[in-house]
Amino acid sequence: MKFITSTSNAQVKQLILLQKKAKERNAQEVFVAEGPKMYRETPPERLMQVYVSETFYQKNQTLFGGDRAVTLLSDRVFESVSDTRTPQGVLCVVRRFHYELRDLLGSDTALKTETRVCPLLMALENLQDPGNLGTILRTAEGAGVTGILLGPGCADLYNPKVIRSTMGSIYRMPFYYTDDLQRDICALREKGIRWYAAHLEGSVPYDEPAYREPCGFLIGNESRGLTEETAGMADARIRIPMCGQVESLNASVAASILMYEANRQRRLAKIR
Amino acid sequence: MKFITSTSNAQVKQLILLQKKAKERNAQEVFVAEGPKMYRETPPERLMQVYVSETFYQKNQTLFGGDRAVTLLSDRVFESVSDTRTPQGVLCVVRRFHYELRDLLGSDTALKTETRVCPLLMALENLQDPGNLGTILRTAEGAGVTGILLGPGCADLYNPKVIRSTMGSIYRMPFYYTDDLQRDICALREKGIRWYAAHLEGSVPYDEPAYREPCGFLIGNESRGLTEETAGMADARIRIPMCGQVESLNASVAASILMYEANRQRRLAKIR
Repeated sequence: MKFITSTSNAQVKQLILLQKKAKERNAQEVFVAEGPKMYRETPPERLMQVYVSETFYQKNQTLFGGDRAVTLLSDRVFESVSDTRTPQGVLCVVRRFHYELRDLLGSDTALKTETRVCPLLMALENLQDPGNLGTILRTAEGAGVTGILLGPGCADLYNPKVIRSTMGSIYRMPFYYTDDLQRDICALREKGIRWYAAHLEGSVPYDEPAYREPCGFLIGNESRGLTEETAGMADARIRIPMCGQVESLNASVAASILMYEANRQRRLAKIR
Repeated sequence: MKFITSTSNAQVKQLILLQKKAKERNAQEVFVAEGPKMYRETPPERLMQVYVSETFYQKNQTLFGGDRAVTLLSDRVFESVSDTRTPQGVLCVVRRFHYELRDLLGSDTALKTETRVCPLLMALENLQDPGNLGTILRTAEGAGVTGILLGPGCADLYNPKVIRSTMGSIYRMPFYYTDDLQRDICALREKGIRWYAAHLEGSVPYDEPAYREPCGFLIGNESRGLTEETAGMADARIRIPMCGQVESLNASVAASILMYEANRQRRLAKIR
């Protein structure tokens, strides 16, 4: 097994580039996932490289039984490549997923089955905070969302902070980066998706519409919300009623409340 | 108006201490709130000092018309006292609130009225992430929560990151730090509060109970959840159903879904 003890090693320098530079990640079509949970959940056919700190390896050798892609790093070198303040001792370089727009409609692509499910989509416009994006992916999987459409202004899903905050959902939630959000919102409407725009001035409380049919939510930027053009494409503008003097909710909280309202209605109606 | 241009100024050093040290904030019974929104929403009787950067002051003089507590800082000095990466140009030192346990039950103390409302409480145990705590306060105000009980292991509500992420709700949401969470959960039950523990192994889906009566949610640590002792004090253990391979949701997302389910039920029943 390879053992690297110097931060000036070429492979280590390459890894640091992957952590820090979206351009480098894009060129190599990979992303970096940190922590034992992420390592365990990486589909074997996507795992390109595994880096383990000396101390972590000593305590968890059995975890890496059959994995020939493992490279050992001294603890100091591991700290220099980790994106976290308290490194967890294992990180891996993972080959990216490539979904098509139609994969968002939910034929359980990730599980390679052909079970049809009732589509539930999220379309994100200019969502810029990496933590919010990761949290939305995680909650989306929990709520039974079938796919996520990302407009051009969104944060980079392959940013290490996003990957971490998905808690593994990145491996299972179909997503599609579009260069024309409005065109693809239209294309999905033609497939039967009814769109609801989360809007502070929405005329309909979010819990009024029936989400038991194929549908999706449009979510905008953290401070500016949806552009008027995108909001204008929705079948209805919904709002989350707020007490007190609250002007808006955190974007991932608002998205989660909407996704779980759809989940609640579908669960009651025994749809999935 | 005082104008400070040196980071070695005693008042500036004092301010940096307040930003960084909980001990210092506790001793002075204050907290620091950054940004124009926080400044505007600070109740005048609590505002002790206001610090404004030169550039911000030039552009927004009218904001500070009657405020004699304003101290001007050179932009460089302001950057050195700011807790944020992109300083917004204004921060203030605010005198703390002191609530009693009974204030959590919601006689709209913050608004100084005597309207009785139906209590809706959150009790947090070992909630450690400042961002989560702030987000819970913000969503709580939006959902109509009447008060928040914080156990000994929780993050410091007066941490600058918490204050920012409350988006002003810190000024309006009654909260109480207890040194004995279980005792106070009991005390509140005796006042008629029915407690629901958010629990991954809860036997009841969260949307089944009726939250139209006085009630509260128990929320635990981000990774370990509630202690068995605290969960054991609940009238019921509820869970948020999750699809896919999701093991848990982000703590502030889970709390938000619960608070808004109570809000939804109360809105439908026209209770507040």
